[in-house]
Amino acid sequence: MLLYFLDLFGTVVFAISGVWVACRKDMDLFGALVLAFVTAVGGGTIRDVLLAATPVFWIKDTLYLMVILATVMVAIMGRKWHERSKWIMQVSDALGLAVFVVIGVTKSLSYGMEPMVAIMMGVLTGCGGGAIRDLLAGEIPMVLRKEIYASAAMVGGAVLVFIEPLIQNIDVTSVIAATVVLVLRLLALYKDLSLPCLSLPK
Amino acid sequence: MLLYFLDLFGTVVFAISGVWVACRKDMDLFGALVLAFVTAVGGGTIRDVLLAATPVFWIKDTLYLMVILATVMVAIMGRKWHERSKWIMQVSDALGLAVFVVIGVTKSLSYGMEPMVAIMMGVLTGCGGGAIRDLLAGEIPMVLRKEIYASAAMVGGAVLVFIEPLIQNIDVTSVIAATVVLVLRLLALYKDLSLPCLSLPK
Amino acid sequence: MLLYFLDLFGTVVFAISGVWVACRKDMDLFGALVLAFVTAVGGGTIRDVLLAATPVFWIKDTLYLMVILATVMVAIMGRKWHERSKWIMQVSDALGLAVFVVIGVTKSLSYGMEPMVAIMMGVLTGCGGGAIRDLLAGEIPMVLRKEIYASAAMVGGAVLVFIEPLIQNIDVTSVIAATVVLVLRLLALYKDLSLPCLSLPK
Repeated sequence: MLLYFLDLFGTVVFAISGVWVACRKDMDLFGALVLAFVTAVGGGTIRDVLLAATPVFWIKDTLYLMVILATVMVAIMGRKWHERSKWIMQVSDALGLAVFVVIGVTKSLSYGMEPMVAIMMGVLTGCGGGAIRDLLAGEIPMVLRKEIYASAAMVGGAVLVFIEPLIQNIDVTSVIAATVVLVLRLLALYKDLSLPCLSLPK
Repeated sequence: MLLYFLDLFGTVVFAISGVWVACRKDMDLFGALVLAFVTAVGGGTIRDVLLAATPVFWIKDTLYLMVILATVMVAIMGRKWHERSKWIMQVSDALGLAVFVVIGVTKSLSYGMEPMVAIMMGVLTGCGGGAIRDLLAGEIPMVLRKEIYASAAMVGGAVLVFIEPLIQNIDVTSVIAATVVLVLRLLALYKDLSLPCLSLPK
Repeated sequence: MLLYFLDLFGTVVFAISGVWVACRKDMDLFGALVLAFVTAVGGGTIRDVLLAATPVFWIKDTLYLMVILATVMVAIMGRKWHERSKWIMQVSDALGLAVFVVIGVTKSLSYGMEPMVAIMMGVLTGCGGGAIRDLLAGEIPMVLRKEIYASAAMVGGAVLVFIEPLIQNIDVTSVIAATVVLVLRLLALYKDLSLPCLSLPK
């Protein structure tokens, strides 16, 4: 129940980030709708298709679509405050990431996936939507280039998968894993940490 | 039967638009094949995958592939007429859009989808292929940025979904919905209408 | 058995090419992981989704993921040799392409696909991953623009599909088809052949 609420919270936050990218790229209302939608449910959609969990989750439960629709309207009307809400959006985004990763991993485990696949699906659920958003906006996905974002998701997913057999309580392990993602991501934001860029010698 | 014929007509028109983008980007024959293919069947393919209607439609009925193949050959040979046929292509494209939207919505309804999902699937069927074409050509999808294209699809899809329970004759409602899409799209072309761009205050 | 080994070989080679693109674009470790992964299994994944062969192959057999992970580590550590290994990588890539095409076609035939669909699936298995890699790196997929790469895949796939009913021994036909792809691709590399670019008259 709490997880479902947090899931919808993450959906709202991710949808807002989609709207802002659409605005930054001078798209129209339809562009904002599409970018909000792919950011919010893109990762989970690919996950469900790969797991053969189709029809995908937002087809089975249309509350997601309605939440996204409402979010787009509110975000467009309030777009002049986007600079002022930057800090609160970053923290919310970190929380959304944590929730999405936990949902992706636990859903995959419940479909009988092996640990490595479950971790990947967690990362995909958390980061996939933002990557598609960036592609549609004509940019190389941010998540591939810098910042500790996907790596926080990966560590959190690994924690969940490895402590779950020890604790055997999915609620407790979920909270621990989500906390790991959240703390790592906030730490990275606060300390401005990122993984080193790889580069080829000339 | 008529719908099937119109569906193949839309396939031809969308494939031609893929070939032209490939030519504009100096791609080779294979690039033209791929762009024609994704423009013509890309939207419907994603729809079928999300609906769990796999194997997707063009695998079950290979006439689509053969039509696309033939279209690519003819379009490449006749590419010097592309400027002269601009007007007829725009009208054909509007008709193709209308047909694809109706097919997407009615197929989704026949799979028991809720109205909101069915409308989305109609828009996806009509606009998804062109968006993938633009991405593969290194462009931000046109449909996200301007012109009344997706919005015409959305209105037509909504009309279909809402009048269908009243009229209870899918043929009649299909014709009405397709007409709505076609008229809106042609009106937008003729009057040069577009949705306002969103933008962020600096 | 040999085919499985060659399949893993192709996975390694394609993963390395993903790592190099990630390095060239100054991505971080996560970017290298993602690009290696999509290059190696992207084509086969889309094939499996379209064929309704889900969960996809690398979920059923996680050896692919482990091979990719190990490859990424080794490739990153050895990236200073990337210029010196250029020639050996091109030949390996041609072999990987040949194997992937054969796997894609034979898997599709075993799912009862028609010849034309099977050829497409072979091309997709061989070329799809590299195309997604290029998209994620912000480039128009190379395969759409030049070189005899996809065309070699197409010819090899067609050979397999058409001689299979004659020879009725999938091992023999696989070897013949793979050889065709390999020879065509190496010839194209050695002679610097490419299909003519299409272009639109101004």
